Amino acid sequence: MTTINVALIGQGFMGRSHSNAWGQVAKFFKPPLTPVMHAVFGQAEENPQAFADNWGWQNASTDWQQLVRSPEIGLVDIVTPNYMHAPVAKAAIAAGKPVSCEKPIAGSLADAREMVEAAKAAKVKTFVWFNYRRCPAVSLAHQLVKEGKLGTVRHVRAVYLQDWADENVPLLWRFEKEWAGSGAHGDLNAHIIDMTRFVTGQEITEVTGAIAETFIKERTRPDGGGKGKVTVDDAVLFLARFSGGAVASFEAARQATGNQNRNYFEINGAKGALKFDFERMNELQYYDATLPRAVQGWSTIMCTHGGDHPYVANWWPDAHIIGYEHGFTNEAYDILRVLAGQQPTVPLPDFEDAYQTQRVLEAALVSADQRRPVSLEEVK
Amino acid sequence: MTTINVALIGQGFMGRSHSNAWGQVAKFFKPPLTPVMHAVFGQAEENPQAFADNWGWQNASTDWQQLVRSPEIGLVDIVTPNYMHAPVAKAAIAAGKPVSCEKPIAGSLADAREMVEAAKAAKVKTFVWFNYRRCPAVSLAHQLVKEGKLGTVRHVRAVYLQDWADENVPLLWRFEKEWAGSGAHGDLNAHIIDMTRFVTGQEITEVTGAIAETFIKERTRPDGGGKGKVTVDDAVLFLARFSGGAVASFEAARQATGNQNRNYFEINGAKGALKFDFERMNELQYYDATLPRAVQGWSTIMCTHGGDHPYVANWWPDAHIIGYEHGFTNEAYDILRVLAGQQPTVPLPDFEDAYQTQRVLEAALVSADQRRPVSLEEVK
Amino acid sequence: MTTINVALIGQGFMGRSHSNAWGQVAKFFKPPLTPVMHAVFGQAEENPQAFADNWGWQNASTDWQQLVRSPEIGLVDIVTPNYMHAPVAKAAIAAGKPVSCEKPIAGSLADAREMVEAAKAAKVKTFVWFNYRRCPAVSLAHQLVKEGKLGTVRHVRAVYLQDWADENVPLLWRFEKEWAGSGAHGDLNAHIIDMTRFVTGQEITEVTGAIAETFIKERTRPDGGGKGKVTVDDAVLFLARFSGGAVASFEAARQATGNQNRNYFEINGAKGALKFDFERMNELQYYDATLPRAVQGWSTIMCTHGGDHPYVANWWPDAHIIGYEHGFTNEAYDILRVLAGQQPTVPLPDFEDAYQTQRVLEAALVSADQRRPVSLEEVK
Amino acid sequence: MTTINVALIGQGFMGRSHSNAWGQVAKFFKPPLTPVMHAVFGQAEENPQAFADNWGWQNASTDWQQLVRSPEIGLVDIVTPNYMHAPVAKAAIAAGKPVSCEKPIAGSLADAREMVEAAKAAKVKTFVWFNYRRCPAVSLAHQLVKEGKLGTVRHVRAVYLQDWADENVPLLWRFEKEWAGSGAHGDLNAHIIDMTRFVTGQEITEVTGAIAETFIKERTRPDGGGKGKVTVDDAVLFLARFSGGAVASFEAARQATGNQNRNYFEINGAKGALKFDFERMNELQYYDATLPRAVQGWSTIMCTHGGDHPYVANWWPDAHIIGYEHGFTNEAYDILRVLAGQQPTVPLPDFEDAYQTQRVLEAALVSADQRRPVSLEEVK
Repeated sequence: MTTINVALIGQGFMGRSHSNAWGQVAKFFKPPLTPVMHAVFGQAEENPQAFADNWGWQNASTDWQQLVRSPEIGLVDIVTPNYMHAPVAKAAIAAGKPVSCEKPIAGSLADAREMVEAAKAAKVKTFVWFNYRRCPAVSLAHQLVKEGKLGTVRHVRAVYLQDWADENVPLLWRFEKEWAGSGAHGDLNAHIIDMTRFVTGQEITEVTGAIAETFIKERTRPDGGGKGKVTVDDAVLFLARFSGGAVASFEAARQATGNQNRNYFEINGAKGALKFDFERMNELQYYDATLPRAVQGWSTIMCTHGGDHPYVANWWPDAHIIGYEHGFTNEAYDILRVLAGQQPTVPLPDFEDAYQTQRVLEAALVSADQRRPVSLEEVK
Repeated sequence: MTTINVALIGQGFMGRSHSNAWGQVAKFFKPPLTPVMHAVFGQAEENPQAFADNWGWQNASTDWQQLVRSPEIGLVDIVTPNYMHAPVAKAAIAAGKPVSCEKPIAGSLADAREMVEAAKAAKVKTFVWFNYRRCPAVSLAHQLVKEGKLGTVRHVRAVYLQDWADENVPLLWRFEKEWAGSGAHGDLNAHIIDMTRFVTGQEITEVTGAIAETFIKERTRPDGGGKGKVTVDDAVLFLARFSGGAVASFEAARQATGNQNRNYFEINGAKGALKFDFERMNELQYYDATLPRAVQGWSTIMCTHGGDHPYVANWWPDAHIIGYEHGFTNEAYDILRVLAGQQPTVPLPDFEDAYQTQRVLEAALVSADQRRPVSLEEVK
Repeated sequence: MTTINVALIGQGFMGRSHSNAWGQVAKFFKPPLTPVMHAVFGQAEENPQAFADNWGWQNASTDWQQLVRSPEIGLVDIVTPNYMHAPVAKAAIAAGKPVSCEKPIAGSLADAREMVEAAKAAKVKTFVWFNYRRCPAVSLAHQLVKEGKLGTVRHVRAVYLQDWADENVPLLWRFEKEWAGSGAHGDLNAHIIDMTRFVTGQEITEVTGAIAETFIKERTRPDGGGKGKVTVDDAVLFLARFSGGAVASFEAARQATGNQNRNYFEINGAKGALKFDFERMNELQYYDATLPRAVQGWSTIMCTHGGDHPYVANWWPDAHIIGYEHGFTNEAYDILRVLAGQQPTVPLPDFEDAYQTQRVLEAALVSADQRRPVSLEEVK
Repeated sequence: MTTINVALIGQGFMGRSHSNAWGQVAKFFKPPLTPVMHAVFGQAEENPQAFADNWGWQNASTDWQQLVRSPEIGLVDIVTPNYMHAPVAKAAIAAGKPVSCEKPIAGSLADAREMVEAAKAAKVKTFVWFNYRRCPAVSLAHQLVKEGKLGTVRHVRAVYLQDWADENVPLLWRFEKEWAGSGAHGDLNAHIIDMTRFVTGQEITEVTGAIAETFIKERTRPDGGGKGKVTVDDAVLFLARFSGGAVASFEAARQATGNQNRNYFEINGAKGALKFDFERMNELQYYDATLPRAVQGWSTIMCTHGGDHPYVANWWPDAHIIGYEHGFTNEAYDILRVLAGQQPTVPLPDFEDAYQTQRVLEAALVSADQRRPVSLEEVK
């Protein structure tokens, strides 16, 4: 049994998701490399030892630089705030280590570009955790498009709507640009840009128009010290064009009442169409326009059949549904496959791939700010 | 243009539905016979003239016996309370007139049998208004089963659930056996028995067990004269077997909170399955188990495509949905076709056919009352 | 009984819808004025007499100018192609007649403005047939917003998606700008602009970005004479802002495979949210964010309860659903109420109101064409 | 930190589910006792060491009798075939150990009764893994009924439908009575009987009628040795009455094409109603008939809100849905609470409770076999 030591850099919500994935993957899958949960980094005040004890990391560290250079580490897994992605990733790359990084790839486009170049120069394998690609339904959507089931794609519409950010939520770090980079845009649009690029197999070539809005402009400081200014967006909408000729709309929002986590896309092609809603993540909606017209309809595929749907043979019997964290475990499995020189189940995003998503995020912000169409050619 | 004079015997809710159908059918369809709304019968206190004026009947009458014998009348259409179906139908048959009668065919099995025999002896064409057969989705279900799309049918489950009859509803005639014959059973189970017989193309051979329940045993008299006893069922459930080997369950209810008019069936065969819910009457759910497993799913067929779905070419463009009353107009069209010697779009129930449904209703009541399985052989 | 003579100017699909409405309204409602289907106009080659015979118009005419001036006519109802709306409406107004006109109000913004001014000067009552406002679910949405159930509205997203226009459809008049004015935009976006203005009670103040696309640029001529150029859009998407601060997206499409008639909106406010899909037109989705959190959810309201939902007391019992054409009949009822000096059930759009929708259509076209944001101030 | 050593007796599908639960519970919850995965038993030919290595059990054993008596063991967890539940449980009880046992409690009613009596005599804590009670949506349903939200319960309908058992499936042990006890009945009806008892808080008092059917009477032997007889049911349907006056229907099936794991109930009360479908296990449908009529509807509650829905505060943010195995982890948490003397989140079934479900299973079999109503009084 070949093993690989993983170092987790960061904790928080994504730290939990990744820890769970590294702990579960070898129980449910037979990866070609067995991950060893070697060490987790956290700031001293975060108490990384408690985190390590809870999740089964063998060691805790408060020195990430030492950790990423350690010869014991085979994979550096980054779940820090966005602004730290670049320094950690570059240090790991400098040490010749494969890196898997949470999305979005970086806090700024410049950082992202540097990460891509560093990885390319060092010929190091990189991965970005766009976990929703690993929902079996989304993987199946990718496969169906690749098989030509949709024909020419003409329409893409995607929204990622949440509603947790009402007036009563205080001025968390998430509402300050300094820490968060952006609001709903980087958090949510990043996912639907990646998913629709992944499923269509096409690139976005232009952002034709965009709106960025902050509905709640001031929030109470968590420490009770009066009100502070919100410096990130609450919602970003934009229109776009795909390389294959499709027109598209995207929207991310945090006050879209009634939508707790509606990560949704619909794609219409000349021969068929697909719909996905993460809140029913085990299901893919497929309209096959090549069937006899009398029986055409939106078909709800329960993507849980071991022999026929990606990943699920490793989980439970048919229609014993899986949940949010399984996407991460599925991704951990594919990372291990790629590290062992095997093909992933469906394509994994590397830094170069995630950089394309970052360019679209940037183009949308420029478009919203300058109130004009922005070609992706401009944003490099 | 060949015309046929229709006499409507009765008014009420079904009188409105039928009047609308006779008025609309030649506007939307090209029937081989054009119906003329010749006369409507009502009790003097019902004011049949006002009804005639409202709906466009040329004449009003308070003498149904005279009316059904009138040489001007080409079709006698019965929408009276159930106990009057038999006398009116038999008079019309005696006069050699085709008869179309609301469901259930009669207030008692004996009446129904006499009606069947009279019609047979007189060689008169008869029809029973099981309107739900004429929902395009239900007609399509019938066609798909006939084409063999389901393979061997193994399961039938049907419910017709309403919730209008809470404690505050007074002691209407519908709650008294003397006037209503039965409660939810004859009103609602009649429909789902007919629909499942129609769609499967099979007969019910046994009622294996049944429950009849009256939850609200007393209700306030409408005239304020204290409380009176409810003498009909609120709910009837039964298990049954079909001639082709399927097992089945049926349920009718009037206090099934949350269900205003859930007229629903699901049928599972070896090769596919179907679901229908009247509250979304334009849709048929179809599961095609012969498709590749990866894309199998419940498909929601919007049954509104003119070229491919029954009846709808005569209505509106695709997905401009139709409603409750359209089933009656569709049925009026088919009655006119049959009267002109043509084939109906899908089979129309005649008295003989409706009598089979009546036998099942009766068997279920016997089973509930005697607490034992009842073979349909017993009930003739 | 007071009556009013209606003249229908035009035939076609909308001619059928309106004829049905005028024929049905007094059967199901008790309008304060009873409409008499006095005369229908059609071009000689359209055979207006046959249309009149089919639908029950008392007279047929091939001279609309004479007809709209006829002293017998009390209401001029226009269902011609869009480019004729203005001349007919202006002639009717000149004759002092109330006018009800199909949507969009006119083939051009200039025409629309002239119609508004003419009506204002003549103090004539006008109506535009935005039929979807009269779906009980949409009327209820309007009422709930008006009662404050949504609080501050922050998000509007609306699409009207169809899929009938694939490569095999020939070069109908609908694909030529000369006859049709625009493609999906005027046909479909007009509806969702009107509906969201109606439901929110707000105006659109800016189109921030827009895309107009024609996917299929050439089509076979119906007469077989080779290929001809498509000169209208297949799809138009745009982003917008509402006067109350909401951000919005709109999309109309004719090749959105899988969507036959998906006329859809979602509106999110601070206190609740609403969703409507015409393909399930009897249902309104409502999320009440003021309920205890444990039981909050999207509630599917079957808008068919006579005592509590607009219009439906005049139709059928609860959950005996209504269909597409009922919106027109409901509108005919309200037109008759307004003509008799009564209040409509919910606000009816007049020319002035419909002109606001037309301005938004225009702004979106300018935005798509000039690739820049367009303030509604610019478009008058 | 107080720990408890768990011994898992058995492997298989349920062995995986339980192993996962014991491994995950302390990572996501803060149980008052921390489980130690001490040892797993398997037959030598099952290779329990490999199972132990995969799932993290510290020891493997092929001698369950020694294991359950071991003083190191604090909880005996049984996942063997049903016929072994009784001997293992009785041995554990004899050793004074708490026992948690997979459902159904036993292979026969007599066994179940002995287990209940042994546990009672020894005053040992017992638990049965009816995992679906621990879906947050089902737990919430229980709480809503308990709070009186449904008023008097009048209707229960429950089905558990699967479709894996077509003609091509060979004669697995599951099709032989000798090994499996029963077919769909014990496997699936056991769950829906338990769930509806749990949610309503009522007992079933009578099985009024029942059908047991085996559609596929012979299957190919897995070893290729010709055909063998199927000796268990494929489907069992029955009608029943609850102690509070509700009427009910139940159905379990394995060839209900289109339903991979439809574990479903609907419960209608005088004041409200509930629906649950395991294939969308994060959602509970609730109809509140006490709301103003205009806004009544089936509300889809996404049961993932930490502060308000059972268990989920320990998992992921709102609408980051959970899956099948989480029910087991939730149950493990509650078992640990009860073992530590605390209250479970919602009631846990012990042997006594599970015995009531077993009695209903038995009554249904007697009713199907003897074709008559069976009072629960008869079955003890």
